[in-house]
Amino acid sequence: MAVVAKVSGEDRRWLSAAIALAERGKGLTGNNPSVGCIIVKDGIVVGRGWTQPGGRPHAEAVALELAGSAAAGATIFVSLEPCAHESARGPACTDSLITAKPARVVGALTDPDPRTAGKGFDRLEAGGIIVERDAMAAEALAGLAGFVTRITKGRPHVTLKLATSLDGCIAMADGSSRWITGDAARAHAHLERARCDAILVGAGTVRADTPKLDVRLPGLEVRSPRRIMLGSGMAPEGWEAIRTPQDVASLDCNRLIVEGGAQTASAFLRAGLVDRLMLYRAPILIGGGKPCLGDIDLTDLTEAHGKWRLADTRMLGNDRFEVYEAFPCLQA
Amino acid sequence: MAVVAKVSGEDRRWLSAAIALAERGKGLTGNNPSVGCIIVKDGIVVGRGWTQPGGRPHAEAVALELAGSAAAGATIFVSLEPCAHESARGPACTDSLITAKPARVVGALTDPDPRTAGKGFDRLEAGGIIVERDAMAAEALAGLAGFVTRITKGRPHVTLKLATSLDGCIAMADGSSRWITGDAARAHAHLERARCDAILVGAGTVRADTPKLDVRLPGLEVRSPRRIMLGSGMAPEGWEAIRTPQDVASLDCNRLIVEGGAQTASAFLRAGLVDRLMLYRAPILIGGGKPCLGDIDLTDLTEAHGKWRLADTRMLGNDRFEVYEAFPCLQA
Repeated sequence: MAVVAKVSGEDRRWLSAAIALAERGKGLTGNNPSVGCIIVKDGIVVGRGWTQPGGRPHAEAVALELAGSAAAGATIFVSLEPCAHESARGPACTDSLITAKPARVVGALTDPDPRTAGKGFDRLEAGGIIVERDAMAAEALAGLAGFVTRITKGRPHVTLKLATSLDGCIAMADGSSRWITGDAARAHAHLERARCDAILVGAGTVRADTPKLDVRLPGLEVRSPRRIMLGSGMAPEGWEAIRTPQDVASLDCNRLIVEGGAQTASAFLRAGLVDRLMLYRAPILIGGGKPCLGDIDLTDLTEAHGKWRLADTRMLGNDRFEVYEAFPCLQA
Repeated sequence: MAVVAKVSGEDRRWLSAAIALAERGKGLTGNNPSVGCIIVKDGIVVGRGWTQPGGRPHAEAVALELAGSAAAGATIFVSLEPCAHESARGPACTDSLITAKPARVVGALTDPDPRTAGKGFDRLEAGGIIVERDAMAAEALAGLAGFVTRITKGRPHVTLKLATSLDGCIAMADGSSRWITGDAARAHAHLERARCDAILVGAGTVRADTPKLDVRLPGLEVRSPRRIMLGSGMAPEGWEAIRTPQDVASLDCNRLIVEGGAQTASAFLRAGLVDRLMLYRAPILIGGGKPCLGDIDLTDLTEAHGKWRLADTRMLGNDRFEVYEAFPCLQA
């Protein structure tokens, strides 16, 4: 579906900024996409916004409010196609945009939500606005993977997080796991928690560790996501529970992180429900410890290859951080 | 013991070249150090050499032979202090150098061999030659770690090689391990074999896999190192056998690579006999496979930290290669 849009380098820079703004809402917008919007007139930003907590107001509404009458004749950069459907919670952004009379709307990605799905762009054009569609689809998709996965696959985008020693252990044989990774890696993992909607661990981990799964970073404590337990038994107060990995579909959220233990991680891998691996690896050897994974139904070594693509890597203190994305990747 | 030598940037460049030349003899010099030597006169290289297979002629002898009378008044750059002891196999390099009448000798590292240990430099000075000692000790030591370990610890420098999946497995549960890493990583591992003196695997691996442990790289087949089996039972023809990790002291070689399996790797780690980890890590998940290590006598997770320092990392195809050095590192 990706269309090669005729956008300039300057367009791409403004659109990149809109995509970056969208990151601010991540983990706060429930099942809504977190979108970024920048309104530029004569080279000056006259309005900007991102999806607000809970999903409303939308990014475009915030930016239009700031811009006021300056939006007339301006160019509006938006990381996702403006919505074409009205809601009890507010008007369709498409209508608000047409009313504001911008000269041009540059959209990074067509909304996969069937209620919009191109109809937003169509209506803007019908309203006399020049429209560039899918101008930076791959870049926008990276930030919207959670929303797009929920819309297209009917389940959240699932990240499996593993923190291991060099020899692939998540704990010593006696269960000790504090600490394997260092301060920088643990702080990074907490930041990733703040950017997701829900964290899941297995019932065994709940019983053994009673993990808080909160965000322990100054100023971000309020961004602790929903806590989900996989398995049977009573979930602790404030937690939700699901029975099988497939039940994540019922959570109605965009981004889920699976944090362990090995049996839970393996269950998600067996079910083919891991979109992304987030690996933290400390420069230590444990030896004979608890492996990070159990059986994942691999029957032939050749089939293990070509499934994971390195998407990011860096050092966090002395630990190596790696992100792998599952093939086939989401397509715009 | 390291002395800050007064050497110029140009001196350091020539000396780096001498250290690089020394790499050519690695794996071919038995229990002798592989040394590099460059003779420079008026900015022109008039002689160069490196330790020849079996350990003789020495680098200095090769370089002096090439330089002939041009060595008189020249500067001689050498990666290790010239030997001060005569041998049935040739004269002491110190004497050959004094006879050649260079103006100056720049040595990267004092020889830890008690038969030389500064006496080579002393005699050059007594012979009227300007001497710079330990001009690039750390750089030279990196290349001479095998020789220096054998001299100072009475055993070879031991590298533990592990090729694993992301989850730290060296094989599937049924033992399948062909292949985990890709072509580039396997070729690199064969090149490392060519640069060591001996490869060791456990008796279990010998019985299960009858590995060739040869160097399967075009043109380097003749550089296959000695093959050592750890454990009881008959070693295959052409192999040597030792009973315990400590017995590596009896091998009288500089550089040993331990290639597996997990029990053998763990035995060397338990004995504190691993100087260097060489990790090849493929972007695959195995899950419930054979772990790369067994018990290594770790009793407290805090003690696992601070033992390994990342010395090198790069991608080899899709696989990540990492080298870790054990603390405390060798000191010049």
